[in-house]
Amino acid sequence: MNLPRSAFNKTDTICAIATPPGTGAISVIRLSGTDSLSMAQKYFNPKFKKADSELFESHKMYFGRFEKEQQIIDEVLLTYFKSPNSYTGEESVEISCHGSEFIQQKIIELLLEAGARLADPGEFTMRAFLNGKLDLSQAEAVADLIASQSKSAHRLALNQMRGGFSEKIKELRDQLLQFTALIELELDFSEEDVEFADRTALHELLNQLKSELSYLIASFKVGNVLKTGIPVAIIGKPNAGKSTLLNAILNEEKAIVSEIPGTTRDAIEDTIIMDGYRFRFIDTAGLRQSEDMVENMGIGRTYDKMEQATIILYICDISQAGKNELEEVLKEFKQYIEDEDKHFILVANKIDQLNEIPAHLKEMLELETVFVSAKRKENIHLLAETLVNKVKSKSISSDIIISNSRHYDALINALDSLIMVEKAFIDNIPTDLVAIDIRQALHHLGTITGEITTDEVLGSIFSKFCIGK
Amino acid sequence: MNLPRSAFNKTDTICAIATPPGTGAISVIRLSGTDSLSMAQKYFNPKFKKADSELFESHKMYFGRFEKEQQIIDEVLLTYFKSPNSYTGEESVEISCHGSEFIQQKIIELLLEAGARLADPGEFTMRAFLNGKLDLSQAEAVADLIASQSKSAHRLALNQMRGGFSEKIKELRDQLLQFTALIELELDFSEEDVEFADRTALHELLNQLKSELSYLIASFKVGNVLKTGIPVAIIGKPNAGKSTLLNAILNEEKAIVSEIPGTTRDAIEDTIIMDGYRFRFIDTAGLRQSEDMVENMGIGRTYDKMEQATIILYICDISQAGKNELEEVLKEFKQYIEDEDKHFILVANKIDQLNEIPAHLKEMLELETVFVSAKRKENIHLLAETLVNKVKSKSISSDIIISNSRHYDALINALDSLIMVEKAFIDNIPTDLVAIDIRQALHHLGTITGEITTDEVLGSIFSKFCIGK
Repeated sequence: MNLPRSAFNKTDTICAIATPPGTGAISVIRLSGTDSLSMAQKYFNPKFKKADSELFESHKMYFGRFEKEQQIIDEVLLTYFKSPNSYTGEESVEISCHGSEFIQQKIIELLLEAGARLADPGEFTMRAFLNGKLDLSQAEAVADLIASQSKSAHRLALNQMRGGFSEKIKELRDQLLQFTALIELELDFSEEDVEFADRTALHELLNQLKSELSYLIASFKVGNVLKTGIPVAIIGKPNAGKSTLLNAILNEEKAIVSEIPGTTRDAIEDTIIMDGYRFRFIDTAGLRQSEDMVENMGIGRTYDKMEQATIILYICDISQAGKNELEEVLKEFKQYIEDEDKHFILVANKIDQLNEIPAHLKEMLELETVFVSAKRKENIHLLAETLVNKVKSKSISSDIIISNSRHYDALINALDSLIMVEKAFIDNIPTDLVAIDIRQALHHLGTITGEITTDEVLGSIFSKFCIGK
Repeated sequence: MNLPRSAFNKTDTICAIATPPGTGAISVIRLSGTDSLSMAQKYFNPKFKKADSELFESHKMYFGRFEKEQQIIDEVLLTYFKSPNSYTGEESVEISCHGSEFIQQKIIELLLEAGARLADPGEFTMRAFLNGKLDLSQAEAVADLIASQSKSAHRLALNQMRGGFSEKIKELRDQLLQFTALIELELDFSEEDVEFADRTALHELLNQLKSELSYLIASFKVGNVLKTGIPVAIIGKPNAGKSTLLNAILNEEKAIVSEIPGTTRDAIEDTIIMDGYRFRFIDTAGLRQSEDMVENMGIGRTYDKMEQATIILYICDISQAGKNELEEVLKEFKQYIEDEDKHFILVANKIDQLNEIPAHLKEMLELETVFVSAKRKENIHLLAETLVNKVKSKSISSDIIISNSRHYDALINALDSLIMVEKAFIDNIPTDLVAIDIRQALHHLGTITGEITTDEVLGSIFSKFCIGK
C-alpha cells in the first residue's frame, strides 16, 4: 500500500479526474503544480480574449474551447487558482467539462502530452499537507469525509478536518513539551543535582495528560463504530423469521436509504441509516437446521459474529418457542447478555399468531424484549427506535472522538510512555532515562498531526485516498 | 417518457447534482432560476466577507462553509453565474463540495428546504433551449456528447452541438420559405391568374432541396452506426474458433479499451474501440453442432444477426474446411455477399496448422479473405485494420451526418412533402393545395431545430437526459 516514489516529488505538475467516475452532466479535471496554467493554456482557447491573454485572474471561471490543432474536444470552463490560494497551496487549475468518459479521458491524455503526470491517490491532499495547508490528521479526515455515508460519520470527519482534534493533540503536546524543557534543563545541570521541575506539579500534569489520553483512547470504540457502522448481529433458529425481519427493518426506512443512491443495498452486508446512524447488519446465515439448540447456535462462525457485534438481536418465533428455548438462550448467551459493551435484545416475532403473551415469556422480562410481527410489519418502528436509543446512550458528549486506528495506536503508545515516566519517578530512575520516555510520548503525539513523520507513514496514509483528491 | 408538467414552469429555481453519481474527490451541485443565489446564500458563509456581502461577482469562485444553524455540512467553493451569462441563461449557482454521497445529499436537502425544486432530467438544457441559448438539435447533441464513448460518436455530437447541422437545416428552410412567399403571393392574387413564382426556378430549387435532404437522410445510416457502434456479426461452425478470435481481437486493443474505464466490457455485447470507431460484436452463440451446413447456419436467429450487421465475419477452420463448406458459404450467404451495404469477410483461421494455403481456398479469392491464427494471435492486427478500413470507406466526407432518429424521421417527412409538391406541379394541381404541402415540409424541418415544437416533443426529448444536465 506504499505510495510510489513519484508522490514525494513536489516539483512536477499532476492531473486527475476529481469527480466520481462515470458519466454525468459535468466532470472536473484538476491540475496542481508550477506549470498547471501553462499546460492547460496549451489547449484552452478562451471565448473572450483579453488584451493580455496571459492574464488569468485567480478563482475566476473562463469559458472556452479545449482543443488540439483546431480539433475541438469540448467546450469547458477553466478556473485558475493562484498559489498559495489553492487546495494544495500550489498553482492549480480546474477544468469543468461535459461528463462523457471519452471527453474526460481525452483531456487527461492531452494534459499528459503537455507534460503533466497522472496524480497518485491522495496526492493533491498530500501536497496540501506538505505545503502546510492541512496537518496530517486533517488530511486523513478529508478521506473520511469523502467516504462518510451517515450523519454521525460525516460529523466525526468534519470535526477532525476542521482541526478540533489536532488542536487538542497540540495542546497536550505543548504541555508535555514544557514539562520536557524543565527536565532537560535539569540534565544540563545534572552534576549540580538541582531540581528545576517541581515534582508535585509534574505528577499532576502527568495525571492530567494520562486521563485525557485515556479519554481519547476510550472514544475510539464509539468513533470507529460511528465511522464504519454499528454492527448488529441477527441470530435465531432458521424458522424464527430472521430474513423477514431484516427486510422489514430495511423497508421501514427505505425512504431514507434510497435518498442516498448506491450507498447501502449493494454492500455485502445490509446497512441502513437510521436517525443519522449507520447500522451494519451482520449476516448470520449458515446456521444448521437442528433441534439441538446448542449445536444450532454454537457454530463458531455465529459466535465470531456476536463477538464483533455491538447489538445482538435474538429472534424467536413466540408461537413456537417453548420455555426450553428461552432458558437455553439465557444460559448459552450469558456472556453477551452480561457484557456491558454489548446490547442483547430479544425480538419476539410472530405476535400476529398469538392472542396473549405466554406465561413463560413473561418470566423472560429480565431480557430486554421487543414484540413484533415481521411479516405484518407490526412494531418494526419500535425495534428501530430501540436500536437508535442504544447507540445514543453510548455516545460520548465531547466533540472530540477518535475514529482512526492510526491515531488510536499512537495514543496508546503515548499513554504507555507516560506510564513509564510515572513509574520512573516512583522508582527514582535517573532523570536522563526519564527524558527518553517523555521524548517517546512526544514523538507518538507528533505522528498524529504529522509534526513527526516519515515518507513511509505518508505513503501508507495517502495511498488509501481516491485518485483526484 | 414524457416530462412532468413542472419542467415547463420556467419561473422556479431548480437544483441537482451535476457530476456523476457516487463518491469522488469533489462533486458539483447546480442551481438555476431567479432565486439561485439567495437560496445558496442562505447556507453559504463565505470565508472572506466583503464590505457589501450581497456582492457576488459573476463567474468567480468563493470559498466558505455550507452550514445550517452553525452546523457545518462542508467547506465548499461557490460560483455565481449572472443571467444571461450562464448555461441556462438564467441566474445560476454551482456549489463544488467534497464528493461524499452524504454531503451531496445534505446540500440538496437544504436547497430543497430553501424552496428549490429537484430538476427533472435534462431540465437545465431544456431551460437553455427555452431561453434561446441552444436550438433543439444542439440541445439533443448535449445528451449525445455526454453519452459518447468513441472518437467518432464524440465528433458527431460535438459538430451537432456546435450548430453545423442546425445551420444547414435553417439554410434549407430559408430557401423553402422564399419559395413559399412567392407561392403565397400567387394565392393572394389567385383570381387574376398571375404566376409570380418562376416555375423553372422553382423546379430547380425543389430538385436541389430534394437532393440535399436525400443526402442527409442517407447519412443517417452512417451516423447512427457511428453513434451506437458498427455491428459486426461473427459466424461460423462451432469448432471454427469464434470465441478465440473474439478474445484475440479484444486483447489486441485491450490497452485502448481499458483506458476508458467501464465503457466496453460490461456491456452485454462485446464492444471495442479501434482507431476511434466503436465496433459492436454481435453474439451468434447458439448455433447447433451439426454436419448439415444449412441446418447449422440456417437458424433464424443467426440470419437476424446478419441482417443487423454492417460487417459479417465468417470464420472457418482452414485445417478442416473442405471445398464443400466454402461452396456452401458462397451459396448460402449470397444475398449478404452481394449486398452493397454490407461487408462479408472470410476469416481463415488456424493458419498455424497448415504449411500452405489449400488449392480449394485459393478458388475462394473472390471473397475478401484474411488469414489468421486466433490461438497464436497471428495477423489479428490485419483483421483489425480491415475492419477499420471498411468503416472509413463508408464514411461520408461531409461534416454533417444525421445520427438522431427524430431528425431522420423529420427529414423523411420533409422529403415526402417535397415530392408531393413536385407531383402537384406536374399534375397542375391548384396553387393553394401545393402551398399546404410546402407548409408541411417547412413544419417538418422546423421541428428539427425546435422552431416548431410542442410540449410533448420537448418532454420526450429532455426526459432522455441525465439529471443535472
